[in-house]
Amino acid sequence: MKSPTPHPTLTYARAQRAAYLEQFIELLRIPSISTDPLHQADIWRTAEWIVDEATRIGFQNCRAIPTEGHPAVYGEWLDAGADKPTILVYAHYDVQPVDPLELWESPPFEPTIRDGKLYARGVIDDKCGVFVNLKAFEALLVTLGKLPVNVKLFFEGEEESGSPSMKSFIIANKALLQADVLLISDGGSPPDQPQMFTSVRGIVAGEVTVTGPSHDLHSGSFGGVVHNPTHVVGKMIAALHDDDGRVQIAGFYDDVQPLDSAEMARVQEQEAVTAPIMQERAGVSKLWGVPNYSVIERATAQPTCDVNGIYGGYAGVGTKTIIPASAGFKVSMRLVADQDPEDIANKFKAFIEQFACETVEIAVTMRGEGPPAQLLTEGPIIDAIVEAIERTWGVPPTLYRQGGSVPIMGMMQRELGMSLATLGFGTGDNGHSPNEYYILEYFYRAIETAIHFYLLAGESDGI
Amino acid sequence: MKSPTPHPTLTYARAQRAAYLEQFIELLRIPSISTDPLHQADIWRTAEWIVDEATRIGFQNCRAIPTEGHPAVYGEWLDAGADKPTILVYAHYDVQPVDPLELWESPPFEPTIRDGKLYARGVIDDKCGVFVNLKAFEALLVTLGKLPVNVKLFFEGEEESGSPSMKSFIIANKALLQADVLLISDGGSPPDQPQMFTSVRGIVAGEVTVTGPSHDLHSGSFGGVVHNPTHVVGKMIAALHDDDGRVQIAGFYDDVQPLDSAEMARVQEQEAVTAPIMQERAGVSKLWGVPNYSVIERATAQPTCDVNGIYGGYAGVGTKTIIPASAGFKVSMRLVADQDPEDIANKFKAFIEQFACETVEIAVTMRGEGPPAQLLTEGPIIDAIVEAIERTWGVPPTLYRQGGSVPIMGMMQRELGMSLATLGFGTGDNGHSPNEYYILEYFYRAIETAIHFYLLAGESDGI
Repeated sequence: MKSPTPHPTLTYARAQRAAYLEQFIELLRIPSISTDPLHQADIWRTAEWIVDEATRIGFQNCRAIPTEGHPAVYGEWLDAGADKPTILVYAHYDVQPVDPLELWESPPFEPTIRDGKLYARGVIDDKCGVFVNLKAFEALLVTLGKLPVNVKLFFEGEEESGSPSMKSFIIANKALLQADVLLISDGGSPPDQPQMFTSVRGIVAGEVTVTGPSHDLHSGSFGGVVHNPTHVVGKMIAALHDDDGRVQIAGFYDDVQPLDSAEMARVQEQEAVTAPIMQERAGVSKLWGVPNYSVIERATAQPTCDVNGIYGGYAGVGTKTIIPASAGFKVSMRLVADQDPEDIANKFKAFIEQFACETVEIAVTMRGEGPPAQLLTEGPIIDAIVEAIERTWGVPPTLYRQGGSVPIMGMMQRELGMSLATLGFGTGDNGHSPNEYYILEYFYRAIETAIHFYLLAGESDGI
Repeated sequence: MKSPTPHPTLTYARAQRAAYLEQFIELLRIPSISTDPLHQADIWRTAEWIVDEATRIGFQNCRAIPTEGHPAVYGEWLDAGADKPTILVYAHYDVQPVDPLELWESPPFEPTIRDGKLYARGVIDDKCGVFVNLKAFEALLVTLGKLPVNVKLFFEGEEESGSPSMKSFIIANKALLQADVLLISDGGSPPDQPQMFTSVRGIVAGEVTVTGPSHDLHSGSFGGVVHNPTHVVGKMIAALHDDDGRVQIAGFYDDVQPLDSAEMARVQEQEAVTAPIMQERAGVSKLWGVPNYSVIERATAQPTCDVNGIYGGYAGVGTKTIIPASAGFKVSMRLVADQDPEDIANKFKAFIEQFACETVEIAVTMRGEGPPAQLLTEGPIIDAIVEAIERTWGVPPTLYRQGGSVPIMGMMQRELGMSLATLGFGTGDNGHSPNEYYILEYFYRAIETAIHFYLLAGESDGI
């Protein structure tokens, strides 16, 4: 229920909307693509922008902490008192690559508003997670002179690269990161129905390259006598799945667990609504997948192995009759339940090793891994999230399983034994595609949801 | 045997070497890449350069004849007398694409001499075929005031695109192209041993595209429920060959014929020398192919199906966890004996149709085709070629089967019933790769070989 008179922090935040939008656009302009080494300087610029902003708002000890990969931004405000929970607020400031660039209707790093939507790379995934939290804290500090809870900021710079150095960073900074709960501000709800994760899938990614002749060969002169690397890549990709879509890597499903009855009941209840929505969002005439599982199970409770890109030889206009010198593919696997990323990486390598032969060289590189994770489903923090959402959206969130991965969740759970909850703010679409957008109305609403949440969390005495 | 006093035409040609080289470089500078629509104007510039040059030398009726594709250059010199043979001289002035550009040690269209080698795209495949013939004719006309034989020029502009419009061009110009023999100046010998084709393989090329979701999808949100186009491409490519490399397209081998005993004897004699050379040129630790055939048979008397390029999804640095909206591959098949390109194209389409399903869309485009061809192996023209080579190389040519394709050969044989012979001038390497080069010494020698050949052919009274 909404209060009849708005809380002064909300009143203040509403007055700041134009200024907030302008400042958000400033952050969105920095092309912090973490997978591309050419954007290394932009990653640092983004981290420093956030450090400056957190410091200005009133956080202490703000800094960009170097890692083996991209810097993590830290900051803290710990004056709420020992009886208040300490919340470690997580979001990531790096963004996906932008190609195919020609499909963007406006340039990805020139934020543009059309029909009440703000278009920019990273706008919902996940610069909103960084920015909305900062603005909620700013409004609370300006209007109340304090925060209702103790807060630590932890903004990652390599989530879209699979967080390769986060594990060692977390292990090296256990004390710094210690908190009662990790609040993940990544992802977001569709406009019609707020949602809350109960689980995320893990991820492990890799790349396979097959090298044949020392240079591209004339397919007339050498066709029939030189092993074609693209053919080997084809055999590998074909062998990854049976005709029904089951992954054929030996032992792949060993640690998958069936859903418990509460989760299965939720899934069954949601299936009829969710399946057609997913089909429409994907833009396919028919969904696909392993038989005998519901769409939601396949998308959240079953593991996957998807080739994300294939390359080798000539891909330009027209024909070029060559045997390519090399070919390869990129792959990522989504993991569930007790699957361990390292174990699955080893099983994938063993799968690829089956294709070893004397006529080509095969190399496998695994990179980026995150375990699957299980989140809080009850307690004061969950109650605060549910209530904050209900106050701002008018309806409580649906509990749902998330098909995507937030590697940091599983790492924090496994390394620090930390409890997890999510409060994602990205209401829009095309998170990993051209024309990523945020519905502006939900941007303003998200700041109010965050303010409500921190106020409510400050009234509790635990998690 | 060489004459003790050089023929005056040879003396003249030797004096012109520096000027010839300079002019050849001028021709090589024009980037006449026929597969790339962006180079359409360069194709025309090249055709017009040749028309101007042939006219200047003394040819009549020179012109670039438009086709449905790229123009064919025609010219004639028909004053040798009705008792002399008429030779239709063929070469192609278009060149292969240049990527990967970063592997070129000097830019492909800035001809550069290093260690006695001339590096440029098209230098051996096949601008040398155009240029060497023109310079032989120029030297003969300057020194003798006439040519020893009647000559028609036919320089193609779309050989590297599979000659898509040559068939209709030939049918529409049967009278213009009529001659006693078609002399193909494409290909060339290795520096240690001159060679002459007895056969070429045919070719048919195509492209398959698989379209799935309407845009690249987040592999976390949609992994497990949307059919991944790269997986379908993998299944297709894998199914093209069995584990021994046999093509699995139904009916593919129906019209393949065993070699006759004379050809088989030549192949067996050449195998021990040829196989290690091919392995070294390919830069592989082991050759590959269908068991129970020699390397030469696999490379010249057996058909092939090679994927020339694969594409789809993210191929940049790092990871991008998507289900790609589409994927595809380019393919070319080398044909032998009685295989018919159109028939094989239909069989390939039927093969791909097996993968039709409700979850992705599949499209096949076939382009570029040329039938296999059998060449003259005896008679006055062959004698003149053998003698011209022996006089300039010191050894007679080896007769050999060619694995590559010159689509025009099979077309001319099938449409005009024309006899075929080859005299290729490209002695160098990397015809379809970066750093294509011509050994300069052989460039000058080629002009003398051509002069000898036309003089000798003028002494005969038939083919």
